[in-house]
Amino acid sequence: HIQVFQDVHVMIFIGFGFLMTFLKRYGFSSVGVNLLLAAFGLQWGLLMQGIWHLDHGKIKMDILKMINADFSTATVLISFGAVLGKTSPVQLLIMTILEITIFSINEHLVATVFKANDVGASMIIHAFGAYFGLAVARVLYRPALRNGHENDGSVYHSDLFAMIGTVFLWMFWPSFNSAIAEPGLTQLTAVINTYLSLAACVLSAYAISSLVEHKGKLDMVHIQNATLAGGVAVGTCADMSIGPFGAMLIGFVAGIISTLGFKFLSPILASNLGIQDTCGVHNLHGMPGILGGLAGIVAVALGKKEGTVAMQAAALASSLGFALVGGAITGFIMKLPFWGQPPDQNCFDDSIYWEVRNPTPHKYYL
Amino acid sequence: HIQVFQDVHVMIFIGFGFLMTFLKRYGFSSVGVNLLLAAFGLQWGLLMQGIWHLDHGKIKMDILKMINADFSTATVLISFGAVLGKTSPVQLLIMTILEITIFSINEHLVATVFKANDVGASMIIHAFGAYFGLAVARVLYRPALRNGHENDGSVYHSDLFAMIGTVFLWMFWPSFNSAIAEPGLTQLTAVINTYLSLAACVLSAYAISSLVEHKGKLDMVHIQNATLAGGVAVGTCADMSIGPFGAMLIGFVAGIISTLGFKFLSPILASNLGIQDTCGVHNLHGMPGILGGLAGIVAVALGKKEGTVAMQAAALASSLGFALVGGAITGFIMKLPFWGQPPDQNCFDDSIYWEVRNPTPHKYYL
Amino acid sequence: HIQVFQDVHVMIFIGFGFLMTFLKRYGFSSVGVNLLLAAFGLQWGLLMQGIWHLDHGKIKMDILKMINADFSTATVLISFGAVLGKTSPVQLLIMTILEITIFSINEHLVATVFKANDVGASMIIHAFGAYFGLAVARVLYRPALRNGHENDGSVYHSDLFAMIGTVFLWMFWPSFNSAIAEPGLTQLTAVINTYLSLAACVLSAYAISSLVEHKGKLDMVHIQNATLAGGVAVGTCADMSIGPFGAMLIGFVAGIISTLGFKFLSPILASNLGIQDTCGVHNLHGMPGILGGLAGIVAVALGKKEGTVAMQAAALASSLGFALVGGAITGFIMKLPFWGQPPDQNCFDDSIYWEVRNPTPHKYYL
Repeated sequence: HIQVFQDVHVMIFIGFGFLMTFLKRYGFSSVGVNLLLAAFGLQWGLLMQGIWHLDHGKIKMDILKMINADFSTATVLISFGAVLGKTSPVQLLIMTILEITIFSINEHLVATVFKANDVGASMIIHAFGAYFGLAVARVLYRPALRNGHENDGSVYHSDLFAMIGTVFLWMFWPSFNSAIAEPGLTQLTAVINTYLSLAACVLSAYAISSLVEHKGKLDMVHIQNATLAGGVAVGTCADMSIGPFGAMLIGFVAGIISTLGFKFLSPILASNLGIQDTCGVHNLHGMPGILGGLAGIVAVALGKKEGTVAMQAAALASSLGFALVGGAITGFIMKLPFWGQPPDQNCFDDSIYWEVRNPTPHKYYL
Repeated sequence: HIQVFQDVHVMIFIGFGFLMTFLKRYGFSSVGVNLLLAAFGLQWGLLMQGIWHLDHGKIKMDILKMINADFSTATVLISFGAVLGKTSPVQLLIMTILEITIFSINEHLVATVFKANDVGASMIIHAFGAYFGLAVARVLYRPALRNGHENDGSVYHSDLFAMIGTVFLWMFWPSFNSAIAEPGLTQLTAVINTYLSLAACVLSAYAISSLVEHKGKLDMVHIQNATLAGGVAVGTCADMSIGPFGAMLIGFVAGIISTLGFKFLSPILASNLGIQDTCGVHNLHGMPGILGGLAGIVAVALGKKEGTVAMQAAALASSLGFALVGGAITGFIMKLPFWGQPPDQNCFDDSIYWEVRNPTPHKYYL
Repeated sequence: HIQVFQDVHVMIFIGFGFLMTFLKRYGFSSVGVNLLLAAFGLQWGLLMQGIWHLDHGKIKMDILKMINADFSTATVLISFGAVLGKTSPVQLLIMTILEITIFSINEHLVATVFKANDVGASMIIHAFGAYFGLAVARVLYRPALRNGHENDGSVYHSDLFAMIGTVFLWMFWPSFNSAIAEPGLTQLTAVINTYLSLAACVLSAYAISSLVEHKGKLDMVHIQNATLAGGVAVGTCADMSIGPFGAMLIGFVAGIISTLGFKFLSPILASNLGIQDTCGVHNLHGMPGILGGLAGIVAVALGKKEGTVAMQAAALASSLGFALVGGAITGFIMKLPFWGQPPDQNCFDDSIYWEVRNPTPHKYYL
């Protein structure tokens, strides 16, 4: 288990951290605040999840607890993506405390009360984290950014840094989805299904990106994100006997939905619903997470794993409900005026929170 | 085996992907098209290799099959290096289909018919992939690029991105060469031999680079590539009892050959033979791969492993023959005028296949 | 053990290599010379450590020996940080030979004669490497750099490259501190203690960084380095039953000391004592290493592990003594005028040792 833990660790700290460095002036915050939130969140997560499993009044540590602690931080890092560039570190630390607390309640409900399947956490991490973050983003809506912000975009090298995050997430997703699976054949199934789903997802993401862009060009935003949707969407079913083609079908559909979401849905959410989703977590974690939950319902209905449709549906509904209500409440708390929220013109800019030095590099060393 | 698979995965997706980001304007394609080709190739490879080992008409999945699928994509990614910047994604997908098909035939021949030793695949992956790519490059020869192209070069930061690829390849090569070795002492031998060969190779690569450059300076091209030649060259012998000094000798010689190849042979190939080898795969995979095959013949002759000189030689000849003939045929198919091959002036430029945004970064954030 | 070895390998080659790329014009040397020194050092380390454990006149190879060889190079890479930008590759190769030789003597003394506890090597690697490097830096003092050097600083993207190093070191430190621990519960303890110490350390490093900088801003230098001090400081105690709060306390204190050291102590060392410590290894490895040694003394006194206070104290004193005396002697040898030491004005500049090409990138691809 130690190596699976290390793989998950890489996803949390390198994967999520660098995925968000695509913004041209916000790389320090992306990878730096990601480190802060994850390091803080895993401690809080150990505490919150430990409370449900006290042993003689103590929290016993083991590798599985560490994996679960990393998992609990993943929800926060997903939500972080929705509000990236528009929140202060203090606001985000408050979000971390509240989101992990609410996550732990929902996780306990899904796993222990509903006894629903969600080995790769499509519902309890990805859908939960995404809709939590979107609810926060809605509450923190900034009308002044309606027409964009000059720093809300990438430059050439920032997109390459982001690809470090993308590729590490992509490669280690089989470990993520199999981390808490039963060792042996079940775990192996989760590895293989995730591997196949991700491979299929890459193909549909590239194909759709090329179809919807001018002159058949590819868009880095799609490649950085939608190629991962297969890992999200196969999460719930990962340890089920859905077969290679089942896994690939889920991944293929996820890649389509995700890319189309970036192209067509995100602009609508921003302009019509006031949801400014910086990283497009709705497309990478939100819709693919729901797809994963629905695929789980179908798979259980088809007898691919023990469980009932009702309990799977309850798990999905519970995850979405806790996310939207919890996110909205958290958003209102984060909106209180004393947490140092950055003014509109300083959004997406590291220099408000970091010492940024050496403004003029020598021309030889660009 | 799962962790060895993950290490190989890192080599394929981060290693090969970032190694090719050295070009100043071609990083998106390097890491992005690498992801596309590898994700597509592993599915095709699973199918092609599975056909030889049907079980009741089905392809059974396991971790070893996934490792072999990753291996089959490695040949394509090596060939990709030879034609980097001068081919369209569609051309490369066609190359993927053809190359992996031909690889599977040759691999079956070498492993099952000849029963030759090639645990780390010096012959069937490295030499094969390199000469396949060189044959394609020869057919796609562009006279207009005879005197170079302004974008066929690196800038400071693109060379640093490439070092991410180099170092991950270097570190995980012991896993690559031991991935399909018999578990236990044989696998351990493969790990240790590769580790030692690579360590020795670094020394000779740095020494020769400094010797052949002006004023004893080092050349990043050599360091990014020739430091890895030891991993290629020790591949065939990796699981043999060649001893630490045998392994180090192979690595040391590989580092010399590879660096000298970059300095003196590549310009000759380009100007006299019409082989424009963008990444110098002939120096990293081609000659070191042949060296590996020859070292395997010597080692078998010296009784370091079961096998016969004739079968080892047949394996080397077969790998080179399939590569050259297969590559030439593939090149002619890729040359057909409807695959969107980029015109000369747009070579080595991402903006022909990617949306490239935000041309003018703020001066503070270079 | 193979996977733990691979994790340590990543720390040595990616972690240390990229951590030092923060300098704006010295990235090639940071990651490139790091590779050279580590590849050379591990061979020398195998030899030096092998001499103490000959088996029928031969050095037997196994994974543990490879981990120890990597460990021995870590001392050199730490010292490299102190003199980064001010020494030639030849000088550094000489330092590698001498430092690893002296390290092997001290390591033998601490482990075999004193039988002291130092599983994560706070004393024999971190404190040793830091004070060795500081002694070298003192001998190589450059008065002309008293007021800084225009290239002794970072630019935006070089700081992001450095974060790759930071995060990989941070993530895999549990493997480092548990690599040579007894398998089973002891090893698991080392993993958990290190994980918790590092998590706590991040919090104190961020908090103190924000407290001591203008307007509560964060400083990348602190985040890149002080977040790792918890891994250093918990090293000696990592496999002891110090409990979660013991581990977190050590990490928390280490983060405070390290950040304060960067802010207040390093400028004093440079201006008053003539110790120009480029990477601040005194703050990341020196003081936290001593803290680790002291924590080990306290832990043994409290009966958290077999051992005696005297032997732990002897190990700490021996490590510091060998480091300071060995570093001073090494510094004088490195100061001999025929090793190509760079002149003051060429310090912190790759172009003196590397071919640096393509000075003017196209404006679209910054």
